[in-house]
Amino acid sequence: MKIKNLIGDRFKERPSDCVTDSHALMVRGGYMKYVANGIYSSFPPLKNITRKIEQIIREEMDRIEGQEVLFPVVLPGTLWDESGRNSSVGNELLRFEDRNGSSMVLGMTHEEAAVQLVREYAQSYVKYPFMIYQIQTKFRDEARPRAGLIRVREFTMKDAYSFHTSQEDLEEYYSKCFHAYERIFARVGIPEVIAVSSDSGMMGGNVSHEFMLLTPIGEDSLAICKECDYRANMEAAASIVNNENNLQSSSLELIYTPNVSSIDDVVKFLDIPIENTCKAVVYQMNLTDEYVLVFIRGDLDVNETKLTNILGSDIHPAIITEESRLKAGYIGPYKLEGNHKVLFDKSLQHIDNLSCGANIGEYHYIGFNIERDYGKVEYHDLSKIRVGGVCPQCGKHAITISRGIEVGNIFQLGTKYTKAMNMEYVDKDGNHQYPIMGCYGIGVGRLAASVCEVRHDEYGPIWPITIAPWQVHLCCLRSDDLPTKECADTLYQYLLDANIEVIYDDRNVRAGVMFSDADLLGVPIRVIVSPKNIQENRVEIITRDKTISMKADISEAVLSVKNLIAKLTNDISI
Amino acid sequence: MKIKNLIGDRFKERPSDCVTDSHALMVRGGYMKYVANGIYSSFPPLKNITRKIEQIIREEMDRIEGQEVLFPVVLPGTLWDESGRNSSVGNELLRFEDRNGSSMVLGMTHEEAAVQLVREYAQSYVKYPFMIYQIQTKFRDEARPRAGLIRVREFTMKDAYSFHTSQEDLEEYYSKCFHAYERIFARVGIPEVIAVSSDSGMMGGNVSHEFMLLTPIGEDSLAICKECDYRANMEAAASIVNNENNLQSSSLELIYTPNVSSIDDVVKFLDIPIENTCKAVVYQMNLTDEYVLVFIRGDLDVNETKLTNILGSDIHPAIITEESRLKAGYIGPYKLEGNHKVLFDKSLQHIDNLSCGANIGEYHYIGFNIERDYGKVEYHDLSKIRVGGVCPQCGKHAITISRGIEVGNIFQLGTKYTKAMNMEYVDKDGNHQYPIMGCYGIGVGRLAASVCEVRHDEYGPIWPITIAPWQVHLCCLRSDDLPTKECADTLYQYLLDANIEVIYDDRNVRAGVMFSDADLLGVPIRVIVSPKNIQENRVEIITRDKTISMKADISEAVLSVKNLIAKLTNDISI
Repeated sequence: MKIKNLIGDRFKERPSDCVTDSHALMVRGGYMKYVANGIYSSFPPLKNITRKIEQIIREEMDRIEGQEVLFPVVLPGTLWDESGRNSSVGNELLRFEDRNGSSMVLGMTHEEAAVQLVREYAQSYVKYPFMIYQIQTKFRDEARPRAGLIRVREFTMKDAYSFHTSQEDLEEYYSKCFHAYERIFARVGIPEVIAVSSDSGMMGGNVSHEFMLLTPIGEDSLAICKECDYRANMEAAASIVNNENNLQSSSLELIYTPNVSSIDDVVKFLDIPIENTCKAVVYQMNLTDEYVLVFIRGDLDVNETKLTNILGSDIHPAIITEESRLKAGYIGPYKLEGNHKVLFDKSLQHIDNLSCGANIGEYHYIGFNIERDYGKVEYHDLSKIRVGGVCPQCGKHAITISRGIEVGNIFQLGTKYTKAMNMEYVDKDGNHQYPIMGCYGIGVGRLAASVCEVRHDEYGPIWPITIAPWQVHLCCLRSDDLPTKECADTLYQYLLDANIEVIYDDRNVRAGVMFSDADLLGVPIRVIVSPKNIQENRVEIITRDKTISMKADISEAVLSVKNLIAKLTNDISI
Repeated sequence: MKIKNLIGDRFKERPSDCVTDSHALMVRGGYMKYVANGIYSSFPPLKNITRKIEQIIREEMDRIEGQEVLFPVVLPGTLWDESGRNSSVGNELLRFEDRNGSSMVLGMTHEEAAVQLVREYAQSYVKYPFMIYQIQTKFRDEARPRAGLIRVREFTMKDAYSFHTSQEDLEEYYSKCFHAYERIFARVGIPEVIAVSSDSGMMGGNVSHEFMLLTPIGEDSLAICKECDYRANMEAAASIVNNENNLQSSSLELIYTPNVSSIDDVVKFLDIPIENTCKAVVYQMNLTDEYVLVFIRGDLDVNETKLTNILGSDIHPAIITEESRLKAGYIGPYKLEGNHKVLFDKSLQHIDNLSCGANIGEYHYIGFNIERDYGKVEYHDLSKIRVGGVCPQCGKHAITISRGIEVGNIFQLGTKYTKAMNMEYVDKDGNHQYPIMGCYGIGVGRLAASVCEVRHDEYGPIWPITIAPWQVHLCCLRSDDLPTKECADTLYQYLLDANIEVIYDDRNVRAGVMFSDADLLGVPIRVIVSPKNIQENRVEIITRDKTISMKADISEAVLSVKNLIAKLTNDISI
């Protein structure tokens, strides 16, 4: 199509509300338009990109025997009652009533709908395994949408659900899907995406992976081992702490510590290693406001995801009241008052000599020994893994932390949904069983923005040919020059006739305007027709990333473009 | 794919809740599954069909310079406030609040979103005309969903919006879109769809057309002239009544008419032609409950759409209370009490001698003459056109009434939305103007169901090749016979290699089961491999509609199938 007809504005100034490059470039390039907080419309260039991404995903899902279906956006609340998630999921599940007062929700994920679709069909083991998927709009009422298409409220997602009669079969399929995801990310032009172990969160199940694109703007922190292939979301990464007992065992002693309430102050005041301090971190359960006290080594932080999983309840940092009988700044395990939930992190295990709050204003204990002075306790892994920490896989102090965007995820769900929703099949021996499920998601818009985030320069996106809004950007410099215009018009037609996707700029504007627009549209191949080139009977062909720049005879321009498309496609294909 | 892996059940019994054949067959064939009232999931066969329909629509929209975009499903209520529709549209617009208490709606149509998308872009006349479209999920909280996919609450729709700087330009584009719609319906296999003039309803604007598929299960009644090309939705069809003055003029006289309150009774009791009676039909405005009295010739019915348009307000049949001072059964124009809105239908014009209610219990007037006894009145076209009525175009008594399903609609919206939402452009002369809009819709699921409704036999749908879930249904009769199975397996692979879409039945089931499943899937070409055919070195190739049945050498089977696909496609292409 001609750029002069393309709807949407392109402009130079970075919008002040855009914190990420992809967001800024996709607004500046006329890809997306703000409609409401976390809700956008797509202009044609973005629609072209997402349509291509969807087609790549579809092909890869079909390749692993996926069957495309469509679930509703609006689901009855009763369906989510069946799984229990209507009450367990928070505000991000948008609930409302229809005109008849029936409780409805906007689908933010479709496990319930998937089970409902196949519950009657799959009553015999011979129907298994199978996988169904959809590409559909979802709505998640995020508290804090951010970064343009990276975290939105409404989005298009591919979500897939597989059903199995054994854990082995699930694992085999899970691995197939894992590889399908690798192919998808490679085909959309970001083969560097890595898979990390993750926390299953509200989805349930045990094993899960997130596919992460490493970038400083990512919302997730990832623990990556330099020495082995261990990779995990920090939320899920086991934290291993080997204590060295820096201080000798000693007897419990109460010390007056005026105005010493932070760990740093305690360490300074008592002149002890921070590894010998026991810190209290206090939370409250969201539903009951019950206090939860986590005791952890003073130099470590609590991993709230792990804590939430152990408690089976969401939490928030505590507001410490008079009635709690907790002495903020001086809380410790010994002689703790009040009937609160208490948890000990593994980092406190095997330290004979600790300092800790005394539960008396301005006092601490030193020489505290948990087993001796408090009794036998169960230790939980509740701390955050740290840079230089111990790799849970190879045991070396080789953990690095990187930030990443989650561009896909896969879960082994087990029987959580089939059991709750009473989906059964009869096995070979006539016994009733619950099928085992896996689920597999990719957000289409986020994937587009992620590609932009790692494939751009200061002038605009550099779209991989497989998902670019067009394959070729044809520029007619000096469209007021008749021979040039005629040549460009003819070439445009020839390219179209060759089934090449072309955006054609035949506006009578300065080259600077033309090229900055082309940069913003990020089309991988640029063909330039100009009076100067025409005189040599040539056109210029340049890739957006500037790695290839050549001149071609006009008569061979279409062929050269075709070859270049093939080359660029080939560079990406896997 | 193999039918044994295809999710979804097929069965023989017609579900008792299915009133239309398409609904029954699409449930029996494993196309769709009920989730909630008017909300369905799609199984793979339906998803295949709708994907193909969407692609045909996309191609035809692109052909008329449409640019594909995507609007959100969830829209801010403030956007609908701008157009005024947040208050003017009834319960079918689903309104709710998000987690922050912001008012949101589920998009049931996207005029507001379209204007919002291009309002900044299209501020100069040089940007016009343009058309944008999307294919997206919509939700309309219908009071009475029915007939499976014909009238649902959640549906996928293609909706397009064009913007123009002159009425002429809109009309030119409208006509282009009209023809694009004709091509779409022809390409999905129902070229018999007709366009009728329609009422613009809540969309606003003056000229609009509905594309109608004639079938007895249709929800709309259409006035079609036998003598000319006049076609209109009954809601919009002008009713022309030529009065003959069956009775001589006479003086007004009050008559005691005990127990005579219906028009039939009046005619019988007074022994007068029904064409000389004046009937009162009473409504109330929805918002104010104000009474509206329509006087109309006794033999005619009120067209409530026309009445609503004239009033500019929704209405319901009246509940007549004591306070209204209306004498139900005896209401007439003469000496009417109470301060009610009164409208006269054109059918009462030029009748000198009428009988009508006397506004006194059990009394009527005869010899009533509106102009003489009541005064000068304005007559409106408020009556329903009738079979044998006068064609508003050719003037002949040639109107027939048919029922139809609306499979598409196009509207000339004018400046209703651009004005309300303050979208302006600067014209050639530097003046500010409101762009003129058109909008164009097609429901994808309804279109699929409509095709099924008119292309099926008692055994199942007969899908046109252009939208069929697969092109070929390969049946291996007696898969327990090794040579037969090997031949069918090989043929399956060859067909796939030739890029033909095949559903392959290699189950070891009776031919009856196999064929009834194939009938329900409605795939246009069936290829049968059986021991008997194998002996002759042949396969059988039959079309679903049984018009073509042949045998082909195994070695030429793929070629024969290819040729048949080409022929069937060619029969449809336009």
